Amino acid sequence: MLLTDQPPVTFSFDVLAGKAEVYRNQGRKIVVVQGLGFVGTAAAAVIANVRDAGGEPLYFVIGVDLASDIGRQRVRQINDGVSPIGCPDPELALFIANGAQKTGNLCATVDIGVYELADIIVVDVPFDVKDKSVEAPSAINVDRQAFEEALRTIGRLMRPEALILIETTVPVGACERLALPILREERERRHLEGPLYLAYAYERVMPGPRYVDSIRRFWRSFAGVDAASAARARDFLASFIDTENYPLWEFDDTKAAELAKLLENSYRMINIAFIYEWTLLAETMGINLFAVVDSIRVRRETHDNMRLPGFGVGGYCLTKDSLLAQWSLTNFFHSDLTLGMTLEALRINRQMPRHAFDLLKEILEGNFSGKKIVVCGVSYLPDLADTRESPSAVFVDWLIEAKASVIAHDPYVKTWRERPQVALSDNLEACLAQADAVVFAVPHAEYAQLTPQIVRRWSGKPLLIVDAQNIISDEKAAGLHALGCRLMGVGKGHWRQKGFQVNEQT
Amino acid sequence: MLLTDQPPVTFSFDVLAGKAEVYRNQGRKIVVVQGLGFVGTAAAAVIANVRDAGGEPLYFVIGVDLASDIGRQRVRQINDGVSPIGCPDPELALFIANGAQKTGNLCATVDIGVYELADIIVVDVPFDVKDKSVEAPSAINVDRQAFEEALRTIGRLMRPEALILIETTVPVGACERLALPILREERERRHLEGPLYLAYAYERVMPGPRYVDSIRRFWRSFAGVDAASAARARDFLASFIDTENYPLWEFDDTKAAELAKLLENSYRMINIAFIYEWTLLAETMGINLFAVVDSIRVRRETHDNMRLPGFGVGGYCLTKDSLLAQWSLTNFFHSDLTLGMTLEALRINRQMPRHAFDLLKEILEGNFSGKKIVVCGVSYLPDLADTRESPSAVFVDWLIEAKASVIAHDPYVKTWRERPQVALSDNLEACLAQADAVVFAVPHAEYAQLTPQIVRRWSGKPLLIVDAQNIISDEKAAGLHALGCRLMGVGKGHWRQKGFQVNEQT
Repeated sequence: MLLTDQPPVTFSFDVLAGKAEVYRNQGRKIVVVQGLGFVGTAAAAVIANVRDAGGEPLYFVIGVDLASDIGRQRVRQINDGVSPIGCPDPELALFIANGAQKTGNLCATVDIGVYELADIIVVDVPFDVKDKSVEAPSAINVDRQAFEEALRTIGRLMRPEALILIETTVPVGACERLALPILREERERRHLEGPLYLAYAYERVMPGPRYVDSIRRFWRSFAGVDAASAARARDFLASFIDTENYPLWEFDDTKAAELAKLLENSYRMINIAFIYEWTLLAETMGINLFAVVDSIRVRRETHDNMRLPGFGVGGYCLTKDSLLAQWSLTNFFHSDLTLGMTLEALRINRQMPRHAFDLLKEILEGNFSGKKIVVCGVSYLPDLADTRESPSAVFVDWLIEAKASVIAHDPYVKTWRERPQVALSDNLEACLAQADAVVFAVPHAEYAQLTPQIVRRWSGKPLLIVDAQNIISDEKAAGLHALGCRLMGVGKGHWRQKGFQVNEQT
Repeated sequence: MLLTDQPPVTFSFDVLAGKAEVYRNQGRKIVVVQGLGFVGTAAAAVIANVRDAGGEPLYFVIGVDLASDIGRQRVRQINDGVSPIGCPDPELALFIANGAQKTGNLCATVDIGVYELADIIVVDVPFDVKDKSVEAPSAINVDRQAFEEALRTIGRLMRPEALILIETTVPVGACERLALPILREERERRHLEGPLYLAYAYERVMPGPRYVDSIRRFWRSFAGVDAASAARARDFLASFIDTENYPLWEFDDTKAAELAKLLENSYRMINIAFIYEWTLLAETMGINLFAVVDSIRVRRETHDNMRLPGFGVGGYCLTKDSLLAQWSLTNFFHSDLTLGMTLEALRINRQMPRHAFDLLKEILEGNFSGKKIVVCGVSYLPDLADTRESPSAVFVDWLIEAKASVIAHDPYVKTWRERPQVALSDNLEACLAQADAVVFAVPHAEYAQLTPQIVRRWSGKPLLIVDAQNIISDEKAAGLHALGCRLMGVGKGHWRQKGFQVNEQT
């Protein structure tokens, strides 16, 4: 149909309509995935990879993103058969290459007209929190524009009987109070009759080596706005999820499914905050909190979800999902309830990088000016390139404010989108050669390989070291101290007792 | 040695000294357990039950309690071969009967002179919190008298080379800052020379069917004040704990072991509070939080420690251990740190029974006066008789204050020591026959057997029901509602939507 072998930057509506027609005539369903970010891209890839008994693709999948620079870039990459997401799971790239190039049943476009081709529309657009206040529930402000516009576009263009499956993490009540009225309004405008099929099934996509399996081989909960919607959602989800090993969990209320996602992430969030609160206690008392937590976690049945001390909490979810719950309480349910403990936990987590900063300040004796500080790790998870809401970002801001000279090191991150002004290197040896002080902010595997001898060889002089991630064992710490380094560690109260922070100049 | 076959109420020092001499000559060690409460009794029973390769008792165990009424009662019961603790684990009573009557190597006394017989002294005395303020750290007040006096008595009487093993849950630093100075002072007064052996190994005794195994077949962490003390503690613990399946965890600092206990229980405590905070949210939103938590817990690797909504937190540990940590920070370490989130969690947990009370108030339309309220369950754990710090206690106080007529039901508790003035019955049928309203406060197994038909037959009229423990399934709730009952449930927001609280009079 095209005059060139090159895949198009974006498929036009006409081309996609033609392809959809062919697939539809073969009895295949057309799935449009709205939003090609961290979740939508993976969802599109997984759904495009589903095969029927005869080995043929079960779906024709069209990914849609906005006609912005970044949207167009993602669309072009997918059409090139390349993953727009850097990801250590080789299956993601494989699925995209397969779908876009081999089977041809995965296409991407910025043309929203394709919603009218869809039998199933999967919604993976963002629902952000603009003002992340933890002080006053009324000050929390969400950005619901992207979500509302996405639903409005769908309502304006959808086939009457299409199933809409929302995967976006939303405030409790968003399906009933935002999506449903918008869709109904647009459908009434079009005089569409017949039932509206709408369901909610939050995603649990986890960046990392099990990226694809976090969709395909993982638990999924869902609910329809009515029984017919639930039944269609169930069938669709079961077509690409290993429900034999991960049976679906069906709620009879979309609110319950929406809440489950927020509660699930808030649970993780408050448990991180709890350990951070006790990190300060352990340091004050001269205790190694890592060892204490390890000792408790042996009680696997009741205590294995306990978290470890660290540098801070990043990522898109744990920094905002609890706020969506509070926002919903205040704005959808007009309640004056305040999730006091949950908001306090968010506040504590935001303070976490500040504590590492305070340790650095102490070891520098307050003297940041002109000091070359190497920040080891700028992603928010180890051994990944994902820098969303990484605590390293605020940390380098404070360093710059204190007139330190910052060098960021990360073996995975090629471009630090959130802090393009910071020098970024993947050469640890070169970084250490310049360093006055080093902060281990992310437990990338590379850092665990360092020995006192290597540090000394690469740095050429004693370093000041803040270990916020238990990178340095006590044995290595003693070795580094013997070489003249000064050390402080988040959660490592015992290091103070061992005198690691005192530098007898060598 | 006695003129009668009856075991003595309390063994005299002379008799025990004679027995100890015999055992010592056989190469057996003499263990004195200080404090015969929930922990000490079980510890004494387990240690007395240890056998050597030839099947002979490894230790001669003497349990010591105060010469108070309750202390004498416990001593007499143990010497009678009877467990002073009501407990569903038959092994506890068996071990006590065996030790006291069959092998004769378990004796109890109120004579503190026996400390001078001990090779090993196990400390299981209480370390209470008197003022449980969650508002101001400086207002938290501990009762360290029992602990300090116990240690002073030991120091005054102990054999120089005896090992002292503290199992009591204590503020971090208590071994170093309280026990050690007291022992040293008393030993100096006696001009005792040679090393002092002192170790800390907190207990994890869990009331319930695995009472004995929670000592014998469970994880144990410990630390000595020095390497020699640690070595002796390790040998002693390994002699009665299944260390093959539950290897000991050794800390090189008693503070770390003390902290581990407080952190472990605080983790549990804050996770209960977290779910309670979201219980109010779920009810406001009309959501069944039990179902939501169940759906999340399928993520076993990361979310299986999530707690369920309920009536409140009781027991000796979860209501005070976090306060010991804060007290230690403030008083031993002179820190101005406040465990803000942790104290907020304690505050939330204390409010839990108040929420059930508010639901009852709502369903009674504020009209408590003269109403017969049956409180089902007064223990703090299901299917146990343990009433320590049970939330049912404050609940009945509020009922009485509101001029309601209270009947407490419990299938296990024979005497409600904390509320002797409240009518207590183990006949549920008779209770329901009198009831205007019923509150399910504890999930005892008996309550799950109730059906709408039984409730109607026993009560003879529609009841008002508050289910704070997910006793009543949705199906049963519908059945009860059809019979004219009104229902409210903690965490059961969906019941409001189903209209269970509205009574169309039948």
